[in-house]
Amino acid sequence: MHHEHGGNIYKYENDNLIDFSANINPYGIPQSIKQAMHNAIDLCVHYPEPNANKLKHALAEKYNLKAENFFCSNGAAEIFYRLANVVKPKTAIITAPTFSEYEQALSSVNCNIKHHFLLKENNFNLKDDILNDLDDNIDICILCNPNNPTGKIINTDLMNKIIKKCDENNIYLIIDECFLDFTGNEKEHSVLYNKSNNLIVIKAFTKIYALAGVRLGFCVSHNVNFINNLSYFGQPWNTSVIAQQAGLAALKLNDYPKQIAQNIKILRDKLYLELKNLNLTVFYGYANYLLFYTSDFNLHEKLLKHNILIRNCENYIGLCKGYYRIAVRTEKENNKLIKALKEVLNY
Amino acid sequence: MHHEHGGNIYKYENDNLIDFSANINPYGIPQSIKQAMHNAIDLCVHYPEPNANKLKHALAEKYNLKAENFFCSNGAAEIFYRLANVVKPKTAIITAPTFSEYEQALSSVNCNIKHHFLLKENNFNLKDDILNDLDDNIDICILCNPNNPTGKIINTDLMNKIIKKCDENNIYLIIDECFLDFTGNEKEHSVLYNKSNNLIVIKAFTKIYALAGVRLGFCVSHNVNFINNLSYFGQPWNTSVIAQQAGLAALKLNDYPKQIAQNIKILRDKLYLELKNLNLTVFYGYANYLLFYTSDFNLHEKLLKHNILIRNCENYIGLCKGYYRIAVRTEKENNKLIKALKEVLNY
Repeated sequence: MHHEHGGNIYKYENDNLIDFSANINPYGIPQSIKQAMHNAIDLCVHYPEPNANKLKHALAEKYNLKAENFFCSNGAAEIFYRLANVVKPKTAIITAPTFSEYEQALSSVNCNIKHHFLLKENNFNLKDDILNDLDDNIDICILCNPNNPTGKIINTDLMNKIIKKCDENNIYLIIDECFLDFTGNEKEHSVLYNKSNNLIVIKAFTKIYALAGVRLGFCVSHNVNFINNLSYFGQPWNTSVIAQQAGLAALKLNDYPKQIAQNIKILRDKLYLELKNLNLTVFYGYANYLLFYTSDFNLHEKLLKHNILIRNCENYIGLCKGYYRIAVRTEKENNKLIKALKEVLNY
Repeated sequence: MHHEHGGNIYKYENDNLIDFSANINPYGIPQSIKQAMHNAIDLCVHYPEPNANKLKHALAEKYNLKAENFFCSNGAAEIFYRLANVVKPKTAIITAPTFSEYEQALSSVNCNIKHHFLLKENNFNLKDDILNDLDDNIDICILCNPNNPTGKIINTDLMNKIIKKCDENNIYLIIDECFLDFTGNEKEHSVLYNKSNNLIVIKAFTKIYALAGVRLGFCVSHNVNFINNLSYFGQPWNTSVIAQQAGLAALKLNDYPKQIAQNIKILRDKLYLELKNLNLTVFYGYANYLLFYTSDFNLHEKLLKHNILIRNCENYIGLCKGYYRIAVRTEKENNKLIKALKEVLNY
């Protein structure tokens, strides 16, 4: 079965629950996108445009690439299953810990999975030794940047070495940049414009525009053949009319991701210090979430009683009991979390 | 590449176009469902409930089955790709003509496809000779009831023989009932309650509730293992928050499908006679669309000039130039179609 993820608020039937377990922009869906979604409801009597053609052209304009470089999907998660079918890898490298849908998608095509363990001693940073694992026995490598659930960014020099090594060994390299918007440093860290034929970059509207429930992601590659092949492994109407309209409205908000990243940085840094002051082992991250460790293994259940849902990370390969992830939310909500933590931890 | 389908209104950039090319309930989305969709927009900051659990329970209640018998999907089309991965068939039987996504989905797992040709001499009805094709070399058979684009219903006796033959030869039998609501005879013709372990029934909210752009379908089987296996081949968030809420609202409209079927029958019968009076070769169908033949091979283009989009069926395997499918729409729209046809055909 699927690993359990964060964000399943439905299990708790508690309308007062604050969800720190899913990493969604806490400011919600921007008003102009909501309006576009309301307007789109009357258009839903029609099938969506096949392959989200208009949205792909809008993405091409925004990123100064061609529509043929893009594939739009029912959330970023859909793409992992499609690309597993395109590549049909025998052996894959993924890090541990990381987002568990990579492993699930690779397993769906009977791929053998090697885990590159990120070490607590290295603060879960990816190090040069990943390069040793990228030999010609590997067919695909999936890396999340910044990584989920650690928030760590891959050093730019190392990233360039990884791309080169993957090129040399004909390894498909999938870089999941779904949280990169929150770093405020997309220009420096995105590999979107690297022209490697083996490179596929995953992005989503899910997190930065708070559209998790709408389902809209996309991928970008300079390998147009690869992009075309994705369409063989699923229906042409995978993105809904509402998702397409939401995406078009989102792309008009030019400065919005930058503004959110600035706010999130301030909130994250404050939250980081507050968690440290509670004597938790906090790992500084660059996205809109923080990973920490505590020897209190019942924190998840205890905080639920305070109407706070956090992500118990013990089911991540490479983590264990005591690891938790929290989203960076609004100042008011973060204060509630800290207050509840103080009570629970007897501070 | 994917076959081109009906319903791609986006190609024409014509706001006055009446779409007879997609088979959608012409009365649009019921008001209560629209309201549920508007209300759902604020809930979209959250991920959808994984596996649409609440919706599955509502379906179970409606159909007097268990939630474990259902799998909800991003439109019915998604299911064909998932089930192709579950079955991994070597050889399949499908009819020709039929909905082309069956073949596309089966091809995605390198399945060899045998076509059982439906003959014009039989008015495209499925006959007993399909039974001869269901031998133990076949792994899966997909049948559409009523068939798209012919509208023909499979005779109940024949259906029972098909189910029996598939059981005997261990053939997965997929019955696509997406248009069955429009026949007004769901009780007589649905095989939903047949307990065969090889039988999977596909249904959708797409057509009868005019939710094509929302993407919501489901399948039903008494084989719970099969249902569970569908979840391995894709993400757990395949149905959006809005789709789930639309589905829940739709299931509260108990008598709606029956009422629509009654209206559609009256409109369809009238349209059938009017098309016959224009000397077109019309094949009577039981769904919300009609297939006809004319020796005018440019009808599609000619009607476009009258702001009318019909489905050119020449790309269906088993049909050829001159076959067209039209949806049954409102009386006013149907009158516009007939008027335009009269002008185009010089009647």
